[in-house]
Amino acid sequence: MREVAVLGVGQTKFGELWDRSFREIGIEAGLEALVDAKLSSSDLNALYLGNMASGTLIDQEHIAPLILDYAGLAGRHLPSVRIEGGGASGSLALHQGYLAVASGLYDYVVVGGAEKLTDVPDATASEITSSAADHEWEVVFGATLPALWALLARRHMHQYGTTREQLAQVPVHAHAMAARNPNAHYRNKLTLEQVLGAGPVAEPLGMLDCAPFSDGAAAVVLGPLETARKHTDTPIRIAASEVACDTMALQHREDITTLASTVEAARRAFGRARRAPPDVRVAEIHDGYSISALVALEDLGFVEKGRAGAEFSSGTFGPGGRTVVNPSGGLKAQGRPFGAVGVAQVVEIVRQLRGEAKDRQVPGAALGLTHDVGGTGATSVVHLLERGN
Amino acid sequence: MREVAVLGVGQTKFGELWDRSFREIGIEAGLEALVDAKLSSSDLNALYLGNMASGTLIDQEHIAPLILDYAGLAGRHLPSVRIEGGGASGSLALHQGYLAVASGLYDYVVVGGAEKLTDVPDATASEITSSAADHEWEVVFGATLPALWALLARRHMHQYGTTREQLAQVPVHAHAMAARNPNAHYRNKLTLEQVLGAGPVAEPLGMLDCAPFSDGAAAVVLGPLETARKHTDTPIRIAASEVACDTMALQHREDITTLASTVEAARRAFGRARRAPPDVRVAEIHDGYSISALVALEDLGFVEKGRAGAEFSSGTFGPGGRTVVNPSGGLKAQGRPFGAVGVAQVVEIVRQLRGEAKDRQVPGAALGLTHDVGGTGATSVVHLLERGN
Repeated sequence: MREVAVLGVGQTKFGELWDRSFREIGIEAGLEALVDAKLSSSDLNALYLGNMASGTLIDQEHIAPLILDYAGLAGRHLPSVRIEGGGASGSLALHQGYLAVASGLYDYVVVGGAEKLTDVPDATASEITSSAADHEWEVVFGATLPALWALLARRHMHQYGTTREQLAQVPVHAHAMAARNPNAHYRNKLTLEQVLGAGPVAEPLGMLDCAPFSDGAAAVVLGPLETARKHTDTPIRIAASEVACDTMALQHREDITTLASTVEAARRAFGRARRAPPDVRVAEIHDGYSISALVALEDLGFVEKGRAGAEFSSGTFGPGGRTVVNPSGGLKAQGRPFGAVGVAQVVEIVRQLRGEAKDRQVPGAALGLTHDVGGTGATSVVHLLERGN
Repeated sequence: MREVAVLGVGQTKFGELWDRSFREIGIEAGLEALVDAKLSSSDLNALYLGNMASGTLIDQEHIAPLILDYAGLAGRHLPSVRIEGGGASGSLALHQGYLAVASGLYDYVVVGGAEKLTDVPDATASEITSSAADHEWEVVFGATLPALWALLARRHMHQYGTTREQLAQVPVHAHAMAARNPNAHYRNKLTLEQVLGAGPVAEPLGMLDCAPFSDGAAAVVLGPLETARKHTDTPIRIAASEVACDTMALQHREDITTLASTVEAARRAFGRARRAPPDVRVAEIHDGYSISALVALEDLGFVEKGRAGAEFSSGTFGPGGRTVVNPSGGLKAQGRPFGAVGVAQVVEIVRQLRGEAKDRQVPGAALGLTHDVGGTGATSVVHLLERGN
């Protein structure tokens, strides 16, 4: 297999982008990534697009050629493919782009992720979010995605003594980080009291424990590592790209305090890259709900099972900590445009590894990790990225 | 790149499968393909699933792990990914499976395609079908997918003298072929008079010029060609897998009597395989509407531009003809469960190349082609398959 590098990155602001269409934000991110990679569109061989729910959100399927077309590339008849896997759609698209370049069939590939969530009422967006859970076994009985994660939280509290206050530290951290990210949906800081006092969504999770519905797009340009120096002084090598799946419904799992898909994707990724969790200096992880982040830190191997709440509260994953988590602000504060999330995670890590993250730069970051989840963990995707040589 | 072979195939009946769920048909096709490939599920490395519109059709996104789970494979935490590109979703999934094996990252991959279209009212299915066209430039102004193909038909008639009767030969042929296919949605024969006398959908296209809404699933198992003999006496090599895209909206094209995406995908596929259209003995092509098949025959290079109507009527593409087209009955008569179509095309060609197509066997078939289209040709996918050595 050919080694694959990230040559360029781009991202729109995340938030309520009511004045801009799906195609507009898709193009903006893609063109920024292309310019960043010092490539022209005539160098491109294919487009992969991560998107979860354009059919229900904007009455439009078949969106990969739509973006290609609107970018003015229809005349070159490039291949374009949409990839879907719930909230993990963006990372799955990256995995496909990685395979495409690794195979040797394509040299330069744009991987984009885009979602337009705020053009529909919140109740509709909420229903659509839940379509990433098991419709026949969970959703028809009234379980929403936050309700399912709340079950997971309750069990984690029961089994490991995780506290409500420890959960609330997750959004406090997210907003503190996002304050330094000009692309973030929310840049206001939160206090512990605000999180604890917010109205309940599905107890123990309140309004401020749940990532928002956002619009947004992100893109990366991939190419062979061997020629990456032509495009950038700091090629970022994809050291591992691993996908793992699990049961759709929570009730079919032996233990709901862990995402087996994350454990497995991380195990494979670290194995392939011959690295270990302590080597990771900066990570973008799934914090769709406060509990998601704590479980992820455990399942990725950054902390012993059951200890994430205590460790998170003690600052292990904050600025100056051992591994800095979600410098972008994560899903909670940078925002959650489903299909764009996994790609945006890679954009952030690439900027960190290049030393271009400005106010939120993590010093000495040489190896970074991204972790993206669909539903309640039926899909997890882990990428390891490192500065190329 | 590693050479890739089809090791096993499986398919459900296509039709109105009201007593069976999406997951049930998905599993049936996948297991049949696995057994056919003499593989056990423990040999598998990944699942790719082509599906166009599960979000709107069955309120369920994130369907690749759903199928994996229901197949009892969740415990192995295999990667699973859904691929979408309108009606071309199945072929696009095959392209991804092909790249995955070619890259060397995965050895054995199941590529499935599934769609459940008849659980919603026909009007809803019709709206969903049109979501493969350009929503903002076409659909909101009232254009449906058959209306757009009807524009194409009118122009083709005007420009090349194609007649209404020539168009009507397409469904007559499709039903004649499907009569020999036990999996077909429609096995009744049609007369020219019946097609011409059917109620109009979008003139010149009538009810019997349009492929039906069907439920169904199909699957293939892919693996490296070098070890294919362990699994089958007749490995079928993927000689080319090519995707090309074009503008979403018809009005942005220079000439609407041709699908540039098909022309380009075919050019690349024949170039890669170092073969030419006359080498193809059997082909499964897109006949979603009668005009689709005629345009495809021209764009794939089987007949000169403008001549497909006359040639088709003269039997060039019928049993005993130069190239036998759609022995399965095609989309029109075998059925059109969007995401399953492209995979089912490959299932049929593999059976033909293996000499296992029974009543509908095309004698001496050594090279076969599949051609799958999304929308009005924003995506085209062409595969060339041949008996491996």
